[in-house]
Amino acid sequence: MTGRNGGAELTPIEPSPVVILVRPQLAENIGAVARAMGNGGLFHLRLVSPRDGWPQERAWRMASGAHRILDKVQVFATVAEAVADLHRVFATCPRPRHIIKPVLTARGGAAEAVAIGARGLRCGVLFGPERAGLDNDEIAQADSLIRYDLNPGFMSLNLAQAVMIFGYEWWLARQNEPAPRALRTHETAPATKGELNHFMDHLIRECDASGFLKNEQKRPGMVRNLRHFFQRGEVTRQELNTLHGVISELVRGRKQ
Amino acid sequence: MTGRNGGAELTPIEPSPVVILVRPQLAENIGAVARAMGNGGLFHLRLVSPRDGWPQERAWRMASGAHRILDKVQVFATVAEAVADLHRVFATCPRPRHIIKPVLTARGGAAEAVAIGARGLRCGVLFGPERAGLDNDEIAQADSLIRYDLNPGFMSLNLAQAVMIFGYEWWLARQNEPAPRALRTHETAPATKGELNHFMDHLIRECDASGFLKNEQKRPGMVRNLRHFFQRGEVTRQELNTLHGVISELVRGRKQ
Repeated sequence: MTGRNGGAELTPIEPSPVVILVRPQLAENIGAVARAMGNGGLFHLRLVSPRDGWPQERAWRMASGAHRILDKVQVFATVAEAVADLHRVFATCPRPRHIIKPVLTARGGAAEAVAIGARGLRCGVLFGPERAGLDNDEIAQADSLIRYDLNPGFMSLNLAQAVMIFGYEWWLARQNEPAPRALRTHETAPATKGELNHFMDHLIRECDASGFLKNEQKRPGMVRNLRHFFQRGEVTRQELNTLHGVISELVRGRKQ
Repeated sequence: MTGRNGGAELTPIEPSPVVILVRPQLAENIGAVARAMGNGGLFHLRLVSPRDGWPQERAWRMASGAHRILDKVQVFATVAEAVADLHRVFATCPRPRHIIKPVLTARGGAAEAVAIGARGLRCGVLFGPERAGLDNDEIAQADSLIRYDLNPGFMSLNLAQAVMIFGYEWWLARQNEPAPRALRTHETAPATKGELNHFMDHLIRECDASGFLKNEQKRPGMVRNLRHFFQRGEVTRQELNTLHGVISELVRGRKQ
């Protein structure tokens, strides 16, 4: 099933979702992911805190020619930084914990990714490390979860296969792409994840200052819950500005 | 994305398509195929003339616990023997040659596999060796081709990924399975590939005897064309009996 060309024709199809590997362990797997991405027409690959650093020659050797994808890899220290310019984030998650977020199939997620792209917005998909999966704080950065619909009696996808299935579904979903179904109003626009996180930082800083989060044991869970809540809708820039104002005002009142 | 269980729950879901690896080279890939199959609920694995023989311990090491699939592997010398008890055969083929056969997507092929199973018939899917793919005579054993709908600018699936995508689509197609749409008439039944090949042997033996295939250079292509033709419809046992009779009668006439 190997193609003849060496990836020379690999060019980004815009808008294509960003694949984000969180704390990947083996460079070989990063290379295999790039190869899988090429098959599905995906191009943008980001790494969050790769265990062995980056670049790693072993990745290029496993990429079967998908070198252009690896050459353009971006590396980030945290998930928050890796998603800062995105408008929508999906997290692949084989066993969703008790989290109030929409859970989509790969097919449903790919259809949403296409719909988001048709509105001129950017999305990304988080994939956890080889064994452990994403942790709760990383999942909290996502708007929706993607859970692959596969044999519950034997779920054992490797990283490249997980990316492969998403890319495959995205490639097919693009071909059924309807006309953009919702035009932006131009009066406001969905916030990026960076803008949302900037707001969350503001909120949490003030919560800390107020003593609301002073129970150190409960703090991480409370912060996550706040994040889940603000993540749920598709918050606009205008709304974020309003929310920033609300916090500033509340603080001012308390400080008087 | 690794599951917790070691494949203990892997049991055949009937009727599930048979995965047939033709001349596979690396035992590691056979193991990776078994793992991919487990994810999609596939169970039956057959090998045609594996390069390094069988069994190979390296396969078990790559199977991530899909041992029950490997334990039950069946090995055959030829594709014809491997498909003899099947009623419908698909061949995965990234670049279909000029062959008059239906070409399906993985999704379409999986839907057909489910429909065939719902009629109580068995099907199989041929996957060629790692680099070379299936040869023309092997493809001639198939009723339909499956061509994966992926980025034409970078088609580079490994064997396990190719099996993975088919298994994934089969798993999803099963969930949309309608009630069996066509009951067998009980007056006759579709022939197995073994019955068809038995007839083809009869036909070709007599063609040889008659001198019809005496041009040695043209013989392989002519035999393939005959096979393509008889493969095209879903030939029944009754029809095959009739065809056997036709040949016998024609021969008798010539010999008199």
